[in-house]
Amino acid sequence: MLNHMFNAKSVAIIGASETKGKIGNDLMISLLNYYKGKIIPINNHREEVLGIQAYKSIKDYGPVDLAVVVIPSPFVPAAVREVGETGTKNLVVISAGFKETDEVGAELEKQLVDICKEFDIKLVGPNCLGIMNTYNDMNASFSSDIAKKGHIAFMTQSGAIFAAILDYADKKNIGFSRIVSLGNKAGINETDCLTNFMDDDNTSVIAGYLEGIVDGPAFMEASKLASKKKPVVIIKSGTTSKGSEAISSHTGTIAGSDSAYDAAFKQCGILRATSLEEIMDYSRTLALFPLPKGKRIAIITNAGGPGIMTTDSIINHDLEIAQFTDATKAKLSEFLPDTANVNNPVDVLGDASPERFGFALDTVLQDPNVDGVIYLVTPQSVTDPEGTAKVAIDHAKSCNKPVLFSFFGGTRCEEAEVVLNEAKVPNYLYPKAAVVSMKALYDYTIIKAREYPEPPVFDVDKEAVKNIIENARKRGTNTLGLESFDILKAYGIPAVGTAISKTLKETVDAAEEIGYPLVMKIISPQISHKSDVGGIKLNLNNAEDVKDAYEDMMAKIPEKVPNAVLEGVQLQRMVSGGKEVIIGMIQDPTFGPTLMFGLGGIYVEILKDVKFAIAPVNENDVASMISGIRTHKLLEGSRGSAPADIAAIKDIILRVSQLVLDFPEISEFEINPLIVFDEGEGALAVDMRLILKE
Amino acid sequence: MLNHMFNAKSVAIIGASETKGKIGNDLMISLLNYYKGKIIPINNHREEVLGIQAYKSIKDYGPVDLAVVVIPSPFVPAAVREVGETGTKNLVVISAGFKETDEVGAELEKQLVDICKEFDIKLVGPNCLGIMNTYNDMNASFSSDIAKKGHIAFMTQSGAIFAAILDYADKKNIGFSRIVSLGNKAGINETDCLTNFMDDDNTSVIAGYLEGIVDGPAFMEASKLASKKKPVVIIKSGTTSKGSEAISSHTGTIAGSDSAYDAAFKQCGILRATSLEEIMDYSRTLALFPLPKGKRIAIITNAGGPGIMTTDSIINHDLEIAQFTDATKAKLSEFLPDTANVNNPVDVLGDASPERFGFALDTVLQDPNVDGVIYLVTPQSVTDPEGTAKVAIDHAKSCNKPVLFSFFGGTRCEEAEVVLNEAKVPNYLYPKAAVVSMKALYDYTIIKAREYPEPPVFDVDKEAVKNIIENARKRGTNTLGLESFDILKAYGIPAVGTAISKTLKETVDAAEEIGYPLVMKIISPQISHKSDVGGIKLNLNNAEDVKDAYEDMMAKIPEKVPNAVLEGVQLQRMVSGGKEVIIGMIQDPTFGPTLMFGLGGIYVEILKDVKFAIAPVNENDVASMISGIRTHKLLEGSRGSAPADIAAIKDIILRVSQLVLDFPEISEFEINPLIVFDEGEGALAVDMRLILKE
Repeated sequence: MLNHMFNAKSVAIIGASETKGKIGNDLMISLLNYYKGKIIPINNHREEVLGIQAYKSIKDYGPVDLAVVVIPSPFVPAAVREVGETGTKNLVVISAGFKETDEVGAELEKQLVDICKEFDIKLVGPNCLGIMNTYNDMNASFSSDIAKKGHIAFMTQSGAIFAAILDYADKKNIGFSRIVSLGNKAGINETDCLTNFMDDDNTSVIAGYLEGIVDGPAFMEASKLASKKKPVVIIKSGTTSKGSEAISSHTGTIAGSDSAYDAAFKQCGILRATSLEEIMDYSRTLALFPLPKGKRIAIITNAGGPGIMTTDSIINHDLEIAQFTDATKAKLSEFLPDTANVNNPVDVLGDASPERFGFALDTVLQDPNVDGVIYLVTPQSVTDPEGTAKVAIDHAKSCNKPVLFSFFGGTRCEEAEVVLNEAKVPNYLYPKAAVVSMKALYDYTIIKAREYPEPPVFDVDKEAVKNIIENARKRGTNTLGLESFDILKAYGIPAVGTAISKTLKETVDAAEEIGYPLVMKIISPQISHKSDVGGIKLNLNNAEDVKDAYEDMMAKIPEKVPNAVLEGVQLQRMVSGGKEVIIGMIQDPTFGPTLMFGLGGIYVEILKDVKFAIAPVNENDVASMISGIRTHKLLEGSRGSAPADIAAIKDIILRVSQLVLDFPEISEFEINPLIVFDEGEGALAVDMRLILKE
Repeated sequence: MLNHMFNAKSVAIIGASETKGKIGNDLMISLLNYYKGKIIPINNHREEVLGIQAYKSIKDYGPVDLAVVVIPSPFVPAAVREVGETGTKNLVVISAGFKETDEVGAELEKQLVDICKEFDIKLVGPNCLGIMNTYNDMNASFSSDIAKKGHIAFMTQSGAIFAAILDYADKKNIGFSRIVSLGNKAGINETDCLTNFMDDDNTSVIAGYLEGIVDGPAFMEASKLASKKKPVVIIKSGTTSKGSEAISSHTGTIAGSDSAYDAAFKQCGILRATSLEEIMDYSRTLALFPLPKGKRIAIITNAGGPGIMTTDSIINHDLEIAQFTDATKAKLSEFLPDTANVNNPVDVLGDASPERFGFALDTVLQDPNVDGVIYLVTPQSVTDPEGTAKVAIDHAKSCNKPVLFSFFGGTRCEEAEVVLNEAKVPNYLYPKAAVVSMKALYDYTIIKAREYPEPPVFDVDKEAVKNIIENARKRGTNTLGLESFDILKAYGIPAVGTAISKTLKETVDAAEEIGYPLVMKIISPQISHKSDVGGIKLNLNNAEDVKDAYEDMMAKIPEKVPNAVLEGVQLQRMVSGGKEVIIGMIQDPTFGPTLMFGLGGIYVEILKDVKFAIAPVNENDVASMISGIRTHKLLEGSRGSAPADIAAIKDIILRVSQLVLDFPEISEFEINPLIVFDEGEGALAVDMRLILKE
């Protein structure tokens, strides 16, 4: 839907100016420098701007493909109404002075949004630096230079990062397809951009810097689709609480909690970058290189030490050191000097010529056990860095395996850098950066192959839960516990039998239904320490035990606590064995219901060893949650103990996912503990806590 | 002891050559370019080399301050003998073809070492790139250019890293004091260099790249001294097992296990760098900036987004965001534009002039709540990067707080980079690199203040342990267990009472001495599953119980296992309550006895939640071990449980440290479990395993 904006054949600049230093002048120059379409300056006072006929109002000219507004914010709503009245449908508001400043600004922004809705105008901004489409030679932004043509589409919520990355890219010869400065995101947001970039033929990598997300679920949905087609690399900043404070003083965006962002990004195939270095390296690498089929990496180097460090780094980043075939080793042995190392890392020795490097690279690339190569050059006395770069670039560009370059040095490597830069091949100055980028390539190999099965839909008794919730509301309570175990039953979640009863007969009947052994607890508002007054009876093994226990309580407790009103008793099946786990849900402000899984007790409380996922979850998501906790081996069976019934946990998480989506009025939910028995023997919820939104 | 070598007034080049491309030619040129002392070429065939009078043998000239050898390895021993015969005491052997190649090379190296010993010659190398002392204008290395003068002393076990770092430093204007290429370390090793650099007035930072350490304990001792005076930053590569393989095929060094290296470096105040980027950034930063007194960091920026990312990074690296005083905020408010953020991070806005940046920096530096500043500039349309750099450099250089610069951009930041480069102030391109370097500064603040108390010396019964070990050897066993609990007693380590007895009387007497309750186990080589035959009796509470149990076993077990030889019974006090921990020791090939501490059971086995320290440990080391495990909160008391007796654990670790140092013949030792009771109630070893070296 944004293609019309990016491919605009005519652009009006509302606030175009002759005065140097004014944004309306910068914008005109930005466009004039490259744009081949029609430019229409709008200026109250002038007949022409920079030699182009100007108009007092856009209404004097008529509709354009894109209007860009740079006048002071108080005048923006009126100007945008005129834009709407011409039938113009695409708008970029660069002007600041809206929601990000104060209440007056917020009101102006509201007016702006309302007018855009009224006229069905697509709005980028306000408070942004503009947009670019290099394939339309259109630079409708502050930046005086248009980006080089390339295949990275970039969106950013920070204007400073827009400027900084363009400047960085200029030096490093990095190209872009489309760039959007999102500003206050009053209209177009990250999801719209993602959806547009996904289908743009000139874009092969989608990158972004975000401080918040307007609509979490929509963004996730779009990202799942996009990341199957192209890599999506995002920085989400404000990950710490202090970071989030900085956000709220910055753009007014409410940052979601980072655990939810982390879970959401993983779930929908987004590669998360944590620094500017990572996002630039990942984007360039993914735009340029073929994906590795696996993670077996070869190193070719003229230096033992850096080879060792790179080996360490490969293993620390969960990649593998490729094991060469005998044929590869034989060929390397035949043509390399005797003292060269023909195992991985291949050491072509300090005196290696470009040809020797080239031969080793060619040989290693042909090895079926090699999925990617790191080409690691240090400038030793006889090294020819430039030649060593040249000999490898063709191999690298024509090969279906990624070859990542690390020339580690300075002055003597400058010419090699020039050669690589001209070929638009990145040099990762430090070998570790090459490894991290290789990991991003491999991660995307996995993401691209990922399936997103539909979550199962269980046959549940939604009506029953609705009634329980309504009744709770009527009673004026927002917190439901054990007494509402029927919620679990309604969603097919096995729970220890429990019942509340008021008479002896009810109690015995309930006991027979639940099964034995049982625990019985007195219910009385006046008694808080039940065990002190004989209000808890354990190990009731049959109806007789239950009857005795009941009668004993009813007889003796009144003697001890004369004023106690005995409302009845609660029975609960006693369970033994199994392992305690916890399944929870909180509502994240950005992504909504966020499920949590972990082992119970100290694992949650001290080790914080839990995993999150945004509901709805599918079977793969649930499997990742369970295998993602550090202590998952405890569930898989260890120290001679049998494996736990992981299938039962999965089933219950999927059911909880359905429950919390069916009832968005649930603000928090927790089964704690869920006792998981040995494989095939199921799991039982022992306690639960459900909190309704106010 | 190496000062004489570094400050040589005369250098002989054995193998000096006129032929371009020969190392003996490179070396001559390297020296000639800068060196002011006397150069003596040694060449079999020529009267002069490069216009300088040459000698057939060094013996024809006489003693020199330093001899550098570049002839082929087979001729080296004879040449070095001649060196020795002149009385020359300092030698660098650049030639390769020694231990790193094959057995012949290893034999040559042995001869070389023997000759150096015979003549008391200090040997650098062989198989190295040479040495430099910029303050003596002496470049006795391969590298054609001498490093710039500076305050980083660098030693490296990789020649390639020597070359690469010199090249990198040339571009970045980084200076060095002394550089040593260690090569095979047949003579001078990392400890010698460390000790020399520590006392060199031109050196303020000691940096190194190491693949192994010759003498772990000596290196630790030297590092403790050195790191109190100057920061010591080391890369130790080969941290993964694959990495270690690469080492053994590379230099024949046996890599120590990484956990021991990590522990050792922490214990002796070494800042460990994990990449070339880190070692360069840390070294430059530490050489240039004052140390921060605390970890409260201010950010000054013209950009919200990068400010947020830097905030995240500060918190993720265990630094803090400074809270400004009201005075600072008032002053900032008064002079900055209304929309500027005067809280930390200070946002001076996208249109900030150099003066505005300078004012903010000056104001923030005066705040007593600020320990260091990150000065974060992105090139926005009106930004003047060069001016913004200039205005800050003087502040930064004259201030007693560190100010780290991050100009994130490319082309437009080049002039700012030049300004910083000329001032020898690093630009951390990515803000995260500035944060990581700030962390290194703060870490060194802590290290510099660190105390190394002497480990306590306990009054122990060494003789008793000696006897137990001797007896075990006599019995032909290397593995000692519960039956050798007297080892613990001898070292004052509390253990559950245990005894082995052969008769009823012995058994009852032992029980009375140990105390109750007790468990009794049958001892019989023929019985492996004791409980199956009634060979374990629990809960023996008095002498009568013990008597009954003993008689029962002796009567009934022969009925069940007629061929069993009943050698006696083992009694052990039963303990209840407390928490299980494990204290262990392994012998590390580099550092010797390496202690381990962790919580017992799954924490060790599944979470690998343990900490190591090299013996001898002092009280601080032990405190770090205990507080360093992720689960330490379990010991400190949580979920309403009382804190454990951490003092008792500390005492026992210190005693184990003494034990394993007193008896180096112990190859492994473990108390598992040690039951730790509530604070003040001590701890008890329940089982132990001690393995003697073969």
